[in-house]
Amino acid sequence: MLSVAKVSLALISLLFFGGFVRDTIEPAPGQGSNPAQGPEYTSDGQMKLPELYREWVFLASEFDMSNNKAAVLAGHHTFDNVFVNPEAYKEFEKTGTWPDKTMLVLEVRGAGENSKIPWAHYQGPLTGVTVHVKDNKLFPGGWAFFRFGDAKTGAKIPESANCYSCHKEHAAVDTTFVQFYPTLLQIATKKGTLTAGYLRDAAPEAKQPL
Amino acid sequence: MLSVAKVSLALISLLFFGGFVRDTIEPAPGQGSNPAQGPEYTSDGQMKLPELYREWVFLASEFDMSNNKAAVLAGHHTFDNVFVNPEAYKEFEKTGTWPDKTMLVLEVRGAGENSKIPWAHYQGPLTGVTVHVKDNKLFPGGWAFFRFGDAKTGAKIPESANCYSCHKEHAAVDTTFVQFYPTLLQIATKKGTLTAGYLRDAAPEAKQPL
Repeated sequence: MLSVAKVSLALISLLFFGGFVRDTIEPAPGQGSNPAQGPEYTSDGQMKLPELYREWVFLASEFDMSNNKAAVLAGHHTFDNVFVNPEAYKEFEKTGTWPDKTMLVLEVRGAGENSKIPWAHYQGPLTGVTVHVKDNKLFPGGWAFFRFGDAKTGAKIPESANCYSCHKEHAAVDTTFVQFYPTLLQIATKKGTLTAGYLRDAAPEAKQPL
Repeated sequence: MLSVAKVSLALISLLFFGGFVRDTIEPAPGQGSNPAQGPEYTSDGQMKLPELYREWVFLASEFDMSNNKAAVLAGHHTFDNVFVNPEAYKEFEKTGTWPDKTMLVLEVRGAGENSKIPWAHYQGPLTGVTVHVKDNKLFPGGWAFFRFGDAKTGAKIPESANCYSCHKEHAAVDTTFVQFYPTLLQIATKKGTLTAGYLRDAAPEAKQPL
């Protein structure tokens, strides 16, 4: 159960880093670049926002994956959407894991309510973006997180942040939470690329109450 | 408020038609065809499932857009994901509306719970697929709905179903519920392609309590 708690903490951390920026970074379809050649950086080590990520391959959504219980209880719900660059997706289909230059984009959106179905929610304005990028030459362990505010460039989240250690220990495939991406989880299971950390967390004895 | 009710009824109908089929139609990435040339049909008028729709452009997710209150209260939550073929998406970016041969795919998935964040949910197994297709030569009004079960072909939903009339009357753009697809709603607003029905529903006086 402790490991599940760690996974949750990492998710919370990722969402915290990604979730509290202003609503001014809505991607503008048809504008900007779509770096098929891989991630791009500025001279001072920031990452350029892959602006057309909404045209990449969608992996999954999550609902209210937030540690802000008070906000949720007050009716301020959120959606997360996760996208990956198509080149990396194609490689994952073949191998069950990620190639160098993989970019996973997590966007957080506010949730609107459907007044006639009180429990139903739909996706609203963008509130934050975080990119998880694999660039073996640049980052220890191969991966880094970048948080985007209202600019087209994002700062790297320090490697001391617990999202790094938790993704490394508990994510289902190569530091990514494939356990929440149902189509990829099928592939990784068949290819035998699930991590020991995930398999330990998923074992029945790990799911006993505290 | 009546019109909002009608919109909700149409959504419920769409979900009802799409949501109660067996979990045997999970798309297999890397297999099947991806008809860039448009929708394909069988000789007896069924539609062929566009099997690689998960590689199309994602529009939005919804959570618990279901009329089954008892199931929701019992903890059986659902996600919807909506995808569109890339050719139609590109045209929508330019014009704010859909070209002939547009295909919108709605998939319904069960929701898993995150045990450490009781209010959080992630996407689980596929339970149903419905395709909303525009094919001007084939269908009255241009559009039809096809429901997919556990086969690779889907039957057309009869035109007498209320999803047709409600989409026509209340959907934000060309019989599609663009009001729930935030990036497209921005485009349609700028292009001036929102329907009179949607604008009437969205007007302040239409939002007064019954």
